[in-house]
This record gives sequence, C-alpha cells and structure tokens, in this order.
Amino acid sequence: MSLELHSQESDLRANLPNVTADIVRSYAEVHTTHHLDHCPLPNKDVIVEILVDLMDILYPGYRHRDRLNVNNVVYHVGDTIDRTFDRLATQISRAFCHGNKSQVECTPQKKRDFEVLGEVKALAFLSTLSALRRSLAKDVEAAYAGDPACTGSDEVIFCYPGLEAITVYRLAHSLHELGVPLIPRIMTEWAHNRTGIDIHPGASIGEYFFIDHGTGVVIGETCEIGNWVKLYQGVTLGALSFPKDAQGNLVRGKKRHPTIEDNVVVYAGATILGGETVIGHDCVVGSNVWLVNSVSPGSTVTIEKPRLVVRNQNQI
Amino acid sequence: MSLELHSQESDLRANLPNVTADIVRSYAEVHTTHHLDHCPLPNKDVIVEILVDLMDILYPGYRHRDRLNVNNVVYHVGDTIDRTFDRLATQISRAFCHGNKSQVECTPQKKRDFEVLGEVKALAFLSTLSALRRSLAKDVEAAYAGDPACTGSDEVIFCYPGLEAITVYRLAHSLHELGVPLIPRIMTEWAHNRTGIDIHPGASIGEYFFIDHGTGVVIGETCEIGNWVKLYQGVTLGALSFPKDAQGNLVRGKKRHPTIEDNVVVYAGATILGGETVIGHDCVVGSNVWLVNSVSPGSTVTIEKPRLVVRNQNQI
Amino acid sequence: MSLELHSQESDLRANLPNVTADIVRSYAEVHTTHHLDHCPLPNKDVIVEILVDLMDILYPGYRHRDRLNVNNVVYHVGDTIDRTFDRLATQISRAFCHGNKSQVECTPQKKRDFEVLGEVKALAFLSTLSALRRSLAKDVEAAYAGDPACTGSDEVIFCYPGLEAITVYRLAHSLHELGVPLIPRIMTEWAHNRTGIDIHPGASIGEYFFIDHGTGVVIGETCEIGNWVKLYQGVTLGALSFPKDAQGNLVRGKKRHPTIEDNVVVYAGATILGGETVIGHDCVVGSNVWLVNSVSPGSTVTIEKPRLVVRNQNQI
Repeated sequence: MSLELHSQESDLRANLPNVTADIVRSYAEVHTTHHLDHCPLPNKDVIVEILVDLMDILYPGYRHRDRLNVNNVVYHVGDTIDRTFDRLATQISRAFCHGNKSQVECTPQKKRDFEVLGEVKALAFLSTLSALRRSLAKDVEAAYAGDPACTGSDEVIFCYPGLEAITVYRLAHSLHELGVPLIPRIMTEWAHNRTGIDIHPGASIGEYFFIDHGTGVVIGETCEIGNWVKLYQGVTLGALSFPKDAQGNLVRGKKRHPTIEDNVVVYAGATILGGETVIGHDCVVGSNVWLVNSVSPGSTVTIEKPRLVVRNQNQI
Repeated sequence: MSLELHSQESDLRANLPNVTADIVRSYAEVHTTHHLDHCPLPNKDVIVEILVDLMDILYPGYRHRDRLNVNNVVYHVGDTIDRTFDRLATQISRAFCHGNKSQVECTPQKKRDFEVLGEVKALAFLSTLSALRRSLAKDVEAAYAGDPACTGSDEVIFCYPGLEAITVYRLAHSLHELGVPLIPRIMTEWAHNRTGIDIHPGASIGEYFFIDHGTGVVIGETCEIGNWVKLYQGVTLGALSFPKDAQGNLVRGKKRHPTIEDNVVVYAGATILGGETVIGHDCVVGSNVWLVNSVSPGSTVTIEKPRLVVRNQNQI
Repeated sequence: MSLELHSQESDLRANLPNVTADIVRSYAEVHTTHHLDHCPLPNKDVIVEILVDLMDILYPGYRHRDRLNVNNVVYHVGDTIDRTFDRLATQISRAFCHGNKSQVECTPQKKRDFEVLGEVKALAFLSTLSALRRSLAKDVEAAYAGDPACTGSDEVIFCYPGLEAITVYRLAHSLHELGVPLIPRIMTEWAHNRTGIDIHPGASIGEYFFIDHGTGVVIGETCEIGNWVKLYQGVTLGALSFPKDAQGNLVRGKKRHPTIEDNVVVYAGATILGGETVIGHDCVVGSNVWLVNSVSPGSTVTIEKPRLVVRNQNQI
C-alpha cells in the first residue's frame, strides 16, 4: 500500500474519536434509550440460556444431552436446578430493582432485599416445573391428536414450533403469575422470534392447547382460552380499539382481548377481536373469518362462499 | 451480606433437592415427554451443523469460508463430505433405531444393522448433492426472474429466505425419499424457524420454484407443485378437513393438500385447500383468494372488487 | 464390530471421493451459484457481528454489556467504533469489488481504491449513528404511546420485534443512501429472519414509526412512509404488478409500492398495493382491507360488515 494511501487512511481514522464523542454526547441528550448509571438490567442472553436449560429438563433426552437414563438423570436435573436457581434469582432481583428505578436511590439494604426476593421467586417458580411437565404432556397429546401429518409425540417435541411457543409461554406465565416484571416478556418474545407465534405471558390458556404451523399467530395479554382449543397459522386474538383517558393517554390493564371457550377450533388467518367477544364452547371458526361479536356455543362460523372473479384466457 | 440473610438464603437453597426429586418423579409418571433408557435420539444441534456444512458446499464462497478457489475447493468439499458422512450416518441410524423403539429390546446385532443402514442411506443422500446443485441453480434463476427488486443471483443466495427454505426442503425431501424418519422434519422446521416458511418434506415440488418474502407460507405434506410456480408471503396450501376412522382417530397418509400445476402464480395471503383441488397450469391466484375447488388451466382468480366502507371525517 | 461390517463400511466410504468429485465437477458446470476465483464476498457472519455491536452502542446497557456507566461507556463506545470501522470498511470494499466483478480483471490498484472507498463509506456511516439514536428514541416513544400492553420504554427495547426490525432497517437504509451494495439487504434479511418483518432498505420511512407484533409485515423497496405511522402484523405494502420491457424482462427500479402519509394506522392483515396508491394523512385502514387505490386524507376504510355463515348444531 502506498504511503499516500496510508496517510489518507490515517486521516479517516483520525475522525473516529469525534464519532465516539458524538455518540457519547447523545447519551446525555437522549436518555430514554440507554441504561447507564442504574442497577444492571436483566441480561437477555442469560435468560435465553435459562430457558434452554429448563427445556432440557422438561423434555429430557430430546435436546442437548444424549444418553440420559433413569439413573443418571437425577444428577443432570439436580445440577441444572442448582445452576438455574442462582442465575434466575439474579435476573429476577435485577428485574424488581429495575421496576423500582423511578424511586429514590437504591440503597444497599434495598438491593439486598431484592436479592432475597429474587431467590424467593426463583424457588417458587422452580417448584412449579413438575406440575408444568404434566400440563405440557397434555399439549403434546393435543398436537398428535390434532394433526394427521404427525408421526408421534417425539416429532411434536422435536419439530413443532407450536409446542415450543406454548412451552415458553407456560414458563413465562408462571413467572408472570409470581409478579416478576419484564422477564416473562423477554421469554415469550424469544419464542416469538423463533416461531413467529406471539403469546403475551399475561394470557390465560387452558389444557390440551395446540397451535399448528403457527407463523403469524398473535394472542393478546388479556385473552382467556379454555381447554382443547386448536389454532392454525395467522390467527389473531386481538384488541378492537384502545380507549383513552381524559388526558388522551391509552388506558392500560383493561380486558381488551377475546375469550375462547373449550373445544374451539380457529382456522388459518381468522381474526377475533375485542374484550367482550366470547366464542362459545365447541365452536368452529373458519379460515379468514373476521369476528368482533360473540358466538353462541356449538356454532360453525365461516365466510360466505367467496365471490371470486375468474377470467380464463383460453375461453376468450 | 448479613449473617441472617446468609442463613435465609441457605434455607431457600435447602429446598432445591426436593424440587429436583419432584421433577425426576414426574419422569416416571409422565413418560410421553422424556426419552430416558432408550437408544439416543437424533441430535438436533448436530443436524443443524450438518445443514450448515451442506449449504457451504452447495453455495461455495458465499458463506462461512472465504477465499475458496477452483484449486483449493476440492479439499474443502472432500473434508466436508467426509465429516458429514460420519455424522449423518450416526444420526440416521439413531432415527431408524428410534422408529423401531416400539418393538422388543434393541439387540447389539440390531444396533449394528442400523449403523450399516445409516451409512448406506448417508452415502445415497450425499450422492444426490451434485444433482441438487443443478436443481437449486434453477430456483436461484427463478428468484431473479421473478422479483424486480433483485439485483442478481448473489443477492438471492445471500438474502432470500425463500431460497433458504427451498434449499433445506430439497435436502430434507431427498432424505425423506430415502425413507429416513424424523430427520427431514427436524430440518424443515429449522428452516421454518429461520424463515417463517413451513414446507413439509413430504411435499413434491418441481423446478424453478420461487417464494418471495415468504413469512407465513405453509405447504402441506401431500402437496404436488409443478415447475415455474411462484408463491408470495402468507400463502397456505393446506388441508380442508380431516377424515376420522371408525374409532374417531384421524386418518393419516391420505392426499389432503392441493395440486398446483406449472407456471402458476399465487399472490400474498391466498389460501388453497383440499386434496382434490387442482390449480391448472398458467393460472394466477390473486391476493387473499380463498379456494377449495379446482380451477381450469389459464384462469385468473381474484376476489371480487372488495366492498369497503370509507368514512371521511373531513366530509362530515 | 465384526470384521465383515468393518469391510462393508470401508466399501461405502470408498465412494466418498467420487461424491466429492461429482460436486466439484458441478461447480464448473453450474457457475451461477458458486463464488470461486473471485475477490471474496462480504461475509454474512461478520456483518451480523457488526449489527450486534452497533445495537450495543445504540442502546447501551440493554444488551451484552452490563454495568456500563457514564464514566466507562466512552471506552466501550470508542473500542466498538474502532473495531467496527475496520471490519465494516473491509466488508464495504468487498461489496463494491463484487459489484464491479462483471468488468475486467480487478487490478491491485482497483483493489486499493475499493479499500479506500470502504473506509470513506464506513466513516460516513458511523458518523450518522448519533443522529440515528435521536431518531430511534422517537420510534421507542411511538411504541409506548401505541400499545396499551407496554409497560415502558425498557420493555420496547428489550422485547419488541418491531423496534429490532426498525433499528436494523434504519442502519441498513443509512448504508443504502451511501450507495453501498448488497450489505443493506443482508442486514434487513437478518432482521426478517429474526422478527418476521421484511423491510427493504430502499424504503423511505419517517419518524415515530411503530410496528406491533409484526410477523408477516412486508414493506417494499419503493414505499414512502410519513411520520407517526403504525402498522400491525401481516400488513403488506407491496407491488401491484410488474411491468415488463420489450424483451419480456421485468422493469427494475420504478416506484411500485404505495405512499403512506402522516398519522396513518394500518390494522392487521391489510394489503395495500401499487406505486400510485396514496393513503392520505390521518387515515385508518382496517383489518384485512385490500386496497389498490388511493384514499383521501382523514378517511377510515374498513371491510364491509363481513357476511358470515353461522350454523349452530344446538339449534338443529
């Protein structure tokens, strides 16, 4: 490389400290999108590692660890639980500490309180895992019962994005029920990224739940879903409109999403909106249906035979 | 940290062995979702590594290895083929062994038979790769020919999720044709996770296939697709309903998904359902069309000019 | 393992050199899908690492690095900028070199020219980052203002796929404006893979942009989008049809995608097509609407109250 080019390169590189200074200056100016000088936030990478570890003990023998048997699995589970307790307690204490940040200075005593709270919640959460396994086995059963292309429960556990999304949802919902902020949403958005299925951890979902294919499914925060419900790809269970308060701000926390009772099937691309919309038990909602009103139990709702325009160049 | 907190922490941690015992107990109770005491299952991580290696030799110079040329590429390919043969043979033998698990005890002789079978199938599969390259080059050509935003075949290989999904599908379909269980579905679901495009490895797809954007596309197990077919995002080629047998169980293995003949374009969000539905050659199926009947060759099917309700606050 | 099996295994393995030779031969035969004997292409893995680094300094404290504060953040940013300058300059020079490959041999002088060009463009790009932070803070604000389930700006930064897709789009668009080929598309397709949101780097998008849920959103190359626009999952802003030239090839580079003016909301699954379609400011486009014509400002467009067929087995 010629000397001239060398010097030109040096000239360019000489601008880098200014670039850095501009960016650092923007932190002082735009403070809503940095997190400096606070207690550390939950770490997304660690939360994902925790999820992967938990799925390894919910479905042992299917994922990262081969050659587990009834004798050695106790060591594997014990080790994973021990490690997860520490890591999760730290993340939960950070999440609570962060939820508190609007308040005055986080004192050392307050920090210790959050650490203890983190451990209490982590233990309470881990204690739900064996019950969760029973519940997830029913979701696996529902998938096999609901899909003629499915060759067995192993295929469901290995391959079905619906089961992955539901597993992460059930873990996140359990933390959400314990009042843990932020982490449940980080968990379900990780599953959303991987599967295209977006389930808010606040939603309430019964047993034997099956989502087939799943890409584009959205299940809102205040949905209530019964047992033996089956959804296909592209189904939205969403909000109809957002009421605003006197100041023009959105009213948060109200039931905005529908209720789906037991034994309902919702086919691909159907949209069901509104907090007062109830789809009665044993209903079938057809593909591409758009519903903003309740439907009585046992109904089948389909779009009218679509009026299509067919032109045939061969017949002209 | 105070002594008191230390002891409280110890108290909490003292519950972890119980948590572990509960989870391990649930393995005995709920046995459909663990895989202990069996021959090891195929390993998903290894299967993904194999796919990444294979894409590296299908499209050499585009991915992980820089600076390949016609002289050194033979070493790169030879090394990859050698490594892939061993790893894939192991995974295939595990998949066959697992398919056999309902039978009586897997004898050492049976295990060795599966090992040999794994090698036979791995070799047969690797022998299809050079023909697959010819086929994939046509898919790349179809993408460039079909998208005015595309700047060239390099952009297709680098950026198009449709090509990624089709590449993984063609690899998985080749294994599926060799009768290998489970692994083809693990492969296509990995691509589904990455691209939002869900193609069952059992589907039969012709040459010059192009999927643009692709998120939400579903192509069912028994679809038959001709040459020069183009699909956009959100297209479902699905099943209409699932017949049940006398016992009320789903009938599996029947043709349930449509046939799409040559030179058909299906625009975004269209849904085509049913095993007896045939979209004749040279048809165009418009955006959001919902079709459960056959269409004769050369037809253009669109939704009726949609009747929309327009309210204009400025005109009130 | 018996001797016989050993020898059979060896026999199978003896075919691997032929498999390798077939694949290598296919490189000579099918040359559109390999990149051998050229200057190296941009490396996708490195480009993703650059994006991850950039997001770390756009939203410091949220991602990989904990415990940043106003004192130490300058070192973190300075180090990242320094590293990114080198890596990005190399990738950009490769992209330009590749864009040039149709021409005659890449001389050493030409290579050095591309290296300098890479550095010039990398510096120009990095200089836009502080302004980009200001712009992205507005996108974060729009997300909080637009979603009643949102608990604060931290949740937006941690969890919202819409923000991730918009962040990557704004980085990619900035490179696109500098005339850098290929890399912007690699960036937005990485985000598409992760979020299901497909934004072409050529699109022009105003301030306070919010995409909720997002899976299935497609925003075409020549879209023009104003300020305070909100989109939901499954919205397509696409092309209506592709004009061909006299030779039957697609005409590339023409405005094919719609214009969306300020303060427009487009609900889930709506499809807006065509380069001459303008959605006037303050419009609301309802769920599942299909639009190929312009709409005057302040309009609300919904589908007609859908005509559904409801059959109730309980009432028969």
